[in-house]
Amino acid sequence: MDHIFSDRISDVPKSFLREILKTTVNEDVISFAGGLPNRDLFPIQEIKKASIKVLDEFGGDALQYSTSEGYSELRKWISERYASKMGLTVNPDNILITTGSQQGLDLIGKTLINESESVAIEEPGYLGAIQAFSLYRPNFLPIPLHFDGLDLEALRFASERYAIKLIYAVPNFQNPSGLSHSDENRDEVARILSGSQTIFVEDDPYGELQFRGEKRRSYYSRIPEQTILLGSFSKIFAPSLRIGWMVAPNRLMEKLIIAKQASDLHTNYFGQRILFQYLTDNNLDLHITKIRAKYSKQKDAMVAAISKYFPKEIRYSDPDGGMFLWAILPEGISSRAVFDLAIEKKVAFVPGDPFYVNRTNANTMRLNFSCVDEETIEIGIRRLGKIISDFIT
Amino acid sequence: MDHIFSDRISDVPKSFLREILKTTVNEDVISFAGGLPNRDLFPIQEIKKASIKVLDEFGGDALQYSTSEGYSELRKWISERYASKMGLTVNPDNILITTGSQQGLDLIGKTLINESESVAIEEPGYLGAIQAFSLYRPNFLPIPLHFDGLDLEALRFASERYAIKLIYAVPNFQNPSGLSHSDENRDEVARILSGSQTIFVEDDPYGELQFRGEKRRSYYSRIPEQTILLGSFSKIFAPSLRIGWMVAPNRLMEKLIIAKQASDLHTNYFGQRILFQYLTDNNLDLHITKIRAKYSKQKDAMVAAISKYFPKEIRYSDPDGGMFLWAILPEGISSRAVFDLAIEKKVAFVPGDPFYVNRTNANTMRLNFSCVDEETIEIGIRRLGKIISDFIT
Repeated sequence: MDHIFSDRISDVPKSFLREILKTTVNEDVISFAGGLPNRDLFPIQEIKKASIKVLDEFGGDALQYSTSEGYSELRKWISERYASKMGLTVNPDNILITTGSQQGLDLIGKTLINESESVAIEEPGYLGAIQAFSLYRPNFLPIPLHFDGLDLEALRFASERYAIKLIYAVPNFQNPSGLSHSDENRDEVARILSGSQTIFVEDDPYGELQFRGEKRRSYYSRIPEQTILLGSFSKIFAPSLRIGWMVAPNRLMEKLIIAKQASDLHTNYFGQRILFQYLTDNNLDLHITKIRAKYSKQKDAMVAAISKYFPKEIRYSDPDGGMFLWAILPEGISSRAVFDLAIEKKVAFVPGDPFYVNRTNANTMRLNFSCVDEETIEIGIRRLGKIISDFIT
Repeated sequence: MDHIFSDRISDVPKSFLREILKTTVNEDVISFAGGLPNRDLFPIQEIKKASIKVLDEFGGDALQYSTSEGYSELRKWISERYASKMGLTVNPDNILITTGSQQGLDLIGKTLINESESVAIEEPGYLGAIQAFSLYRPNFLPIPLHFDGLDLEALRFASERYAIKLIYAVPNFQNPSGLSHSDENRDEVARILSGSQTIFVEDDPYGELQFRGEKRRSYYSRIPEQTILLGSFSKIFAPSLRIGWMVAPNRLMEKLIIAKQASDLHTNYFGQRILFQYLTDNNLDLHITKIRAKYSKQKDAMVAAISKYFPKEIRYSDPDGGMFLWAILPEGISSRAVFDLAIEKKVAFVPGDPFYVNRTNANTMRLNFSCVDEETIEIGIRRLGKIISDFIT
């Protein structure tokens, strides 16, 4: 029956993560496997007020079809926030509202990737990007991600050897690893890419969730003509509305808008209006401060528990922000095997495999701290530490 | 600079319609060019109530990430409506919620179309489908659409000569023509396709907006294993939420869901919850009755005005439902040339060109009646009739 399908869809990995998450919804499982923002922090009352106001004042307009580029006031708001928070000059005309930043990845694939062209991706990397790009059948070039950023040797080697069309990275508090590219690393990466034909896809859904340290300068500010910057309201507002955006250079905008129009005409406009009303009537920074405080405390609890309960030979990231922490088991230890034991003992995480283009039995694990309270983190990590210790010895 | 783009995006026609619509937003232009549902009929108060209830009762859940397949209760509702309104048995597992039915087209392209495979499309045809499929670089086979449905000779010829992967049609009150496939036409088309490898993509956004006559049986009920049926809430509820769906046979579902996940993770879930709350607390049929009554009256006014003011040699459709009417100028008369004169005289329509895979200076025109009141229709059609009469002679 398979001849009915396109070749492209046959290449896309089934989401192993999805299967894993199904096994972890059991109520008495302590799950570090999720990847969700904490629902206790959603501004429900404020969204209610915004919804009522939008419908009372702009009902007919807010419910009608709208433009593919997105709500102009929202694009302006994003432009102003870039200016005030990051010192970046971004023209609203270079901002395209997308149906979550996931759609940004699909639009990039549609618009830029020909079959067999080279797409470099940090490894471990964001699963959704691997999935989205896979549909356009690129030749993936994995670039190892270290605790301070991309492997420069590997990037240099790849860029000399291949015409890299895109390089994809989440430079701030990455999913799955929680790692960030240091400023020095960014300098070097930008130097290697500068003037080439390569587009840097800078995916930044977690940038606003920074717990400590200096803000690092974006790739967009370093090589703007070669950067597509993706953003999202999912982690600082609410994910269910599926509102993200992309910033792209002039020369790419027209084609991206055509691709957007062909994909879903435009992003849910009622949601865009509610979001904009929320942003107008509330202090987003105050809200983000609350999210940061909670996630930061939970991250601290997780790091403390790991240092107490995990065997000493296990390395792990201590993220400056975001929602994830990364642990590296000794070489040769399969985290999938550990997962099978852990789920029996009612604790879950995501084994590293799906975050690599092509690897099984990786020795890495993703641990989410945004949705579990400090006390439960302590219990869960203790349980997991025991399993790992037993497994290793 | 063009080498930066994928070959596929270079193939997609820029939306000529979009350019046309820009010229018609001027306030004193009477526009039959639009394609929007009438905003006066949006159930604003009911949507407000539904939004409040969803946030009060299910806030955290309604704002969180959700499943790629869509809200299970909404899928069940759609399944039940098929049973009660069309006598169709559709398992909710075979329903995938999409970001407008436009996304359904993209997912079909992603999942099924390889480059150069044959895609038959009725002509004139829905522009958004031509755009969405173009990205996957098929070989388009235009099948002429007549006043009673598809050209059977052309379909037979094409299906003997080519391995047709898909055939796309809007069998009820089509956009742009307002034409429908008769039951006899459907019988014949189904007979030609039955048992072949061809998938019938039955796009039905207007089916509920029927003014008169018997309901025609869907292709889905004739050749279910070969049909993908697309539906939409845009014309019976509100378009800005971007909620549509697709019904597909078992063998296609898994791949379609993977494509959906890669495209935008899931459809705006807050919107799905609001919609479902609305459907639970209100009588949709009553609402649809109001829409039908208004559009039907406006269609009647347009037909009456055309028969009064257009030259006698002009043929036109008298639709049984939907939002559009189609007029055919004498052979050799370019409706684009007429458009240029019309816009000077402050009346607008869409010239036929963009509704063909590859034609310029077509002698056809699309006239929208959903958004213009009866009195204005009379004035606009009179104005247009004068322009056409002058132009022809």
